[in-house]
Amino acid sequence: MQSLQLYSGTLREYLQNAINQKEPSHLYQPIDYILSLGGKRIRPTLTLLVCDIFGEDHKKAINAALAVELFHNFSLIHDDIMDNAPLRRGKETVHEKWDVNTAILSGDAMLILAYQFFENYEPKMFQKLAMLFSKTALEVCEGQQWDMDFETRDDVTLEEYLKMIDYKTAVLIGAAMKMGAIVAKTSEADAEKIYQFGRNLGIAFQLQDDYLDVFGNPENFGKQVGGDIISNKKTFLYLNSLENGSMKEKEDLQNLFSINPKDPADKIETVKQIYESSGASEATKKAIELYTLKAFENLESLNISNEKRQQLQTFGNELMRRNI
Amino acid sequence: MQSLQLYSGTLREYLQNAINQKEPSHLYQPIDYILSLGGKRIRPTLTLLVCDIFGEDHKKAINAALAVELFHNFSLIHDDIMDNAPLRRGKETVHEKWDVNTAILSGDAMLILAYQFFENYEPKMFQKLAMLFSKTALEVCEGQQWDMDFETRDDVTLEEYLKMIDYKTAVLIGAAMKMGAIVAKTSEADAEKIYQFGRNLGIAFQLQDDYLDVFGNPENFGKQVGGDIISNKKTFLYLNSLENGSMKEKEDLQNLFSINPKDPADKIETVKQIYESSGASEATKKAIELYTLKAFENLESLNISNEKRQQLQTFGNELMRRNI
Repeated sequence: MQSLQLYSGTLREYLQNAINQKEPSHLYQPIDYILSLGGKRIRPTLTLLVCDIFGEDHKKAINAALAVELFHNFSLIHDDIMDNAPLRRGKETVHEKWDVNTAILSGDAMLILAYQFFENYEPKMFQKLAMLFSKTALEVCEGQQWDMDFETRDDVTLEEYLKMIDYKTAVLIGAAMKMGAIVAKTSEADAEKIYQFGRNLGIAFQLQDDYLDVFGNPENFGKQVGGDIISNKKTFLYLNSLENGSMKEKEDLQNLFSINPKDPADKIETVKQIYESSGASEATKKAIELYTLKAFENLESLNISNEKRQQLQTFGNELMRRNI
Repeated sequence: MQSLQLYSGTLREYLQNAINQKEPSHLYQPIDYILSLGGKRIRPTLTLLVCDIFGEDHKKAINAALAVELFHNFSLIHDDIMDNAPLRRGKETVHEKWDVNTAILSGDAMLILAYQFFENYEPKMFQKLAMLFSKTALEVCEGQQWDMDFETRDDVTLEEYLKMIDYKTAVLIGAAMKMGAIVAKTSEADAEKIYQFGRNLGIAFQLQDDYLDVFGNPENFGKQVGGDIISNKKTFLYLNSLENGSMKEKEDLQNLFSINPKDPADKIETVKQIYESSGASEATKKAIELYTLKAFENLESLNISNEKRQQLQTFGNELMRRNI
């Protein structure tokens, strides 16, 4: 996808000049720092891509794209505090490099800065973008709260889990795309379809992340394979085994998820076997397929050329193949 | 001021129904909790008062007032984490009653909820209010960062200190008032004047807080008299003594601010004497008067009736007499 590179060039250029305020430096340095760590910048790229696809110059969407990127990085800074994470993109997290107070306050400032990017649009568009942004941002907070709640709950249902990943991850992908549609002044119907495309693709992507964390190729998967099992994370695979496995599988799994062995190799292997034998592995693959199909259905009736539709399909396929 | 009671009645009624979302409860309960702690609700009251004074029904400003109150409480939750404060309005702080993670995330949600209250206004007014809000919120973050920076710096100037209290405290008072003016669709000039009235009054109020913390009557002053001296806080009195005191006064003061005696009575007494002999006490009283006068000057040319002008003057005087 050649054009995605075009967008990332635009993004890089604008991101470097995004934060003008430099004082007090303890507030703004951490913001510069986390933005400079890079990452794939999928979300803002999607805002630019969708704006382009609906026939408007992608540069008109740059401020909405920057708002999305600022918000995403705000949520990373605060989530990293909550998860006590030492590393982000291979570098020290903000609360490690500075301290927790700095990470709280710089995160707060980033959330406000995100809103300020919308000020570059005329009032009606400003309001549309800011309303979608607030709704989405609140959902992301709710998703994060559910995720934390689930850690200590033993009655989490598959439905609740799907809602959690929808809110924590998928709605922001949908909103990033819809913002591109809003800037391009497309119809409400098309804006809603592109939102559902991104949102369902986001769910599929997160479910695939759960799957690859267990069954992925260590050479291609960016994270440690088995990481979710080691940390006893209640993923779609785990909850599916509990709902659909035999009594014995259920019992074994719960026992395994109550221990933290020094050498986790055996635990990983046994959990893997339960995920296979209980049918959870198959069910997860089916769910990934289902949400991917649900995503793609939204593209069919979009009021765009087949060439543009193809571009979105290619993006979706590449994302699910983890090649971008 | 009878009418202020009218406003607080309106506020109480709306605040009870302000937060509709109830799930996940760990996210929304802390928000209900801090809002239920009360406080004087000066800021949102000012939004309603100013709207009324510029000839519009104060109920039209209720959503702007709620946004201000939500933002103020968001900043209290996050500041209390940073200050490691156990109590707020005599009750447990959010991070004490729940935990730091809950306090971070509930605070984040409150900041977003604040923006959502502006959605009740038409696009142009929405944009005006949200822009003023973002600018102010960012300044409050900057003020908080400066305040934290000052703790470990020994070269803070009076000018820097004034900028810090302006940003951390005063701009929100000014913005709360200006929002009432925006909702009442007053002229830009009048909106700016009422902003400067609130802002200068806010600086005067904070300087008076510094003064009363040392020289206040323990029976009237809400906080522990001498508290700033005990915690070695670099207030206007302290910085003024360093800039204008004799070499000996300066040296003694710096020594006293490097110790934390178990019984602080002697330390408080000696610091008090230095604040008097160095002229800092007099200078602070003069500064309070100066900023109060600066505030009142803005009222003179406001395009309102003398009766309304009198109402604002009464409010200003009551605030500075600490009777409201």
